[in-house]
Amino acid sequence: MKKLLATWESLCATSGALRFVDINLRGVGQVMFQDNPLSGALFIAAIAWGSFAAGVPQVLFGGLLAVVSATLTAQWLHVELASLRAGLYGFNGVLVGLALATFIAPGPLLWTYVVLGGAVSVVAMGATVSVAKTWGMPALTFPFVLVTWLLLLATYGFAGLVGTALPAAGVVVPFESTAATRMDAGLFVQATLLSISQVFLKGSAIAALLFLAGLAVNSFAAAFAAVAGAVLAVITAHALGAESDLVTGGLLGFSPVLTAVALGTVFQQPGLRVAVFAALGTVFTVVAQAAFNVALTPLAIPALTGPFVLVTWMFLLPRLALDKTDAAPARS
Amino acid sequence: MKKLLATWESLCATSGALRFVDINLRGVGQVMFQDNPLSGALFIAAIAWGSFAAGVPQVLFGGLLAVVSATLTAQWLHVELASLRAGLYGFNGVLVGLALATFIAPGPLLWTYVVLGGAVSVVAMGATVSVAKTWGMPALTFPFVLVTWLLLLATYGFAGLVGTALPAAGVVVPFESTAATRMDAGLFVQATLLSISQVFLKGSAIAALLFLAGLAVNSFAAAFAAVAGAVLAVITAHALGAESDLVTGGLLGFSPVLTAVALGTVFQQPGLRVAVFAALGTVFTVVAQAAFNVALTPLAIPALTGPFVLVTWMFLLPRLALDKTDAAPARS
Amino acid sequence: MKKLLATWESLCATSGALRFVDINLRGVGQVMFQDNPLSGALFIAAIAWGSFAAGVPQVLFGGLLAVVSATLTAQWLHVELASLRAGLYGFNGVLVGLALATFIAPGPLLWTYVVLGGAVSVVAMGATVSVAKTWGMPALTFPFVLVTWLLLLATYGFAGLVGTALPAAGVVVPFESTAATRMDAGLFVQATLLSISQVFLKGSAIAALLFLAGLAVNSFAAAFAAVAGAVLAVITAHALGAESDLVTGGLLGFSPVLTAVALGTVFQQPGLRVAVFAALGTVFTVVAQAAFNVALTPLAIPALTGPFVLVTWMFLLPRLALDKTDAAPARS
Repeated sequence: MKKLLATWESLCATSGALRFVDINLRGVGQVMFQDNPLSGALFIAAIAWGSFAAGVPQVLFGGLLAVVSATLTAQWLHVELASLRAGLYGFNGVLVGLALATFIAPGPLLWTYVVLGGAVSVVAMGATVSVAKTWGMPALTFPFVLVTWLLLLATYGFAGLVGTALPAAGVVVPFESTAATRMDAGLFVQATLLSISQVFLKGSAIAALLFLAGLAVNSFAAAFAAVAGAVLAVITAHALGAESDLVTGGLLGFSPVLTAVALGTVFQQPGLRVAVFAALGTVFTVVAQAAFNVALTPLAIPALTGPFVLVTWMFLLPRLALDKTDAAPARS
Repeated sequence: MKKLLATWESLCATSGALRFVDINLRGVGQVMFQDNPLSGALFIAAIAWGSFAAGVPQVLFGGLLAVVSATLTAQWLHVELASLRAGLYGFNGVLVGLALATFIAPGPLLWTYVVLGGAVSVVAMGATVSVAKTWGMPALTFPFVLVTWLLLLATYGFAGLVGTALPAAGVVVPFESTAATRMDAGLFVQATLLSISQVFLKGSAIAALLFLAGLAVNSFAAAFAAVAGAVLAVITAHALGAESDLVTGGLLGFSPVLTAVALGTVFQQPGLRVAVFAALGTVFTVVAQAAFNVALTPLAIPALTGPFVLVTWMFLLPRLALDKTDAAPARS
Repeated sequence: MKKLLATWESLCATSGALRFVDINLRGVGQVMFQDNPLSGALFIAAIAWGSFAAGVPQVLFGGLLAVVSATLTAQWLHVELASLRAGLYGFNGVLVGLALATFIAPGPLLWTYVVLGGAVSVVAMGATVSVAKTWGMPALTFPFVLVTWLLLLATYGFAGLVGTALPAAGVVVPFESTAATRMDAGLFVQATLLSISQVFLKGSAIAALLFLAGLAVNSFAAAFAAVAGAVLAVITAHALGAESDLVTGGLLGFSPVLTAVALGTVFQQPGLRVAVFAALGTVFTVVAQAAFNVALTPLAIPALTGPFVLVTWMFLLPRLALDKTDAAPARS
């Protein structure tokens, strides 16, 4: 694997076109914190599978168009080169593209919107990095969430952009389960896997396995944390009496999965105290996800990974050094 | 009084258990900025009176359970020792516990929720301190507001947690008083006292007197500012035509009371210019309280002390040194 | 022109009363970034025309009362003198006054509210400057937006203050144009001009020409950027299928106009790359304006210039130095 990556890197060093491809692949990989083109390629395979299996190939196209738009914009703006090459100016773009193509009907205006969203995601990333580095914080997917919320909200004011899969607006009412729902082993596994694939807005077990493969080729710890975070999220959501369809569809688990990977492996050295702390953050992300879902009910937009961003920042900001190192977070 | 406290302190120095009690008492006292175990004890007496008088003893239990959860979490996380011992990692916890037990029906999941909320309040406090100290600002009750809003919003997505006293969701409509409401002397006194007791989510005149006693044992100025702030808030709200039940129930006054104490005595040296400035802040907090009540109407959650936090930060941030000293705020 | 201004300045140096007038005029000029009393005078003429033409002279009075309240408050608080004299503590005040008198029925409580809003806008400005300077950012109209949102939201809780021109609360629903709307040349010119006059909450073509004159006497580049920004905003909004009345009323264009002036001339040296970047920001401000309109639908308050503030900060924060200078932003 290392040799393969070394060969690829030497090829990229000789070709601007391959370097461009490499940057975009790493951009996709960075959605789950992996600065590795192979992770990115496996993630794209997962997105492709999930998109074609669900009969929405335009979602794959939206993601790819947006990440290319983001990378071209970042190059034109002369952003910091090391971050650009590590894919840090691409991961928000690919998510913007996936989200727009998931929630809005295809058409020329959608693709214009995707290109615009990819470009603006770079500016939003630059802004978030400027602010967050004051406290040594990573930007996480805040730029994606901010830009996508604005773009989706605006569709309600534009006749040219029609939402197809946006949640319906409504008044906040308590959820009451009509009956006790059993969670059998099959549903539990499905809920766990879909919590992972929904990080990329896909509800597919096979896509989830490809995502896990993409994590594992770069970091076994990250793959383990993703599964552990998903399991913990499903148990928590079920115990609190969340709606079964949300749990088994992975829709309360994708933010906690990201929290578990971020707090458990990426920004702190793995260890017992870190694991307990990350578990607390993961559980609270389930609460935050439910809270965001409720808070956004009157606005008819999805929470995206907002809960992950909020909780992970909240847990990193005290800089508690549970891992007995004082290393600064490695990612901006 | 001083001798009593000195004796208590020397006892705490010899016993870990007493030190633990001391930290929790100071945590309760810090809800109104008093780093004094006797203030905390009187505040607990007030909460107890208010809880039993209203037939909801579980609210007292919720507050105590949460502050203990917060203190244990803070110790496990090795937070900064001086702040821990001053009760600064406890006051958000006790408020989280009081709020959750006030708004959610009792049951095993509620107590799990209270323990979780107390623990997360410590993390939120650490995060708020990190950010706020950039501008020399205190954290105030922001951690309490943030954590409680998320926990309460999430109950609408969890069948296991049932809101019992949460406001109903609704569309924003203008309030029209059906008739001119007279505010006689009795109602005026009631409105003033309940504005003070509602800082701890209690509507009880006797509890208010106990809270004032708790303030006075540590700071006469703070007790005076609390009463003056309450009077000013009641007059302002009534003059603007606020709903009578809100005014006489103290529900538009508790945030202004905290603003008055904070701006008038805790973070600035008392004096004429400071008093005028604090009065402006107190009046504007009434506006902010009404604004938050309206803004949260579609979300069916209470404003808590959010208006106090916003306005007090707004008035402290310019660092105007009205008191002709350049002393930094004393509390983080 | 320069000689006239020099004469005026020497007069102000000898008279406290004229200096006071000068500060207030510059305060009005700073709404569109012009530190020039003549710009301010022309802007006031435009506001006067727009107010009398629409039969609402109280709006002019509200703006003037609030800016005087703001200046007096700023003097009492001993804010930084150079900023005070440049009008930086007045522009939020005049906007607060215009907005309150536009949206609330006249009466004694309205004028109390206007004086309060003008005074608090100074505190909010001081707070925003403290925070924003951490990243070298200007305060923009954030203080106006924050204070006015709170004051307007609160009116729904006060029987003494009645909204007359506030938007109705509603549930978010997609906008569907009933038919393709033609945008002929006359409507296009109207939409462009009203996008400029709506910066001051006025829908008047003649007022727009006076605003442009006020810009041009201090900066031709700013006047050009305002027109270019308005044209781009109208084209963008129309192409995306926005509601015709909003477009031709200038209600989707005033925030983009401010973004164009800010990004294109005030905070970056004009040039080709800056122009492209400013255009991207202007287009995205149209999206943000539509998004804010939707997001505020359940709260029944207008977006004001919130979208301009958000997008301009987002585009300035990365500090991209597209103009090949590293000059810090000139305005706080």
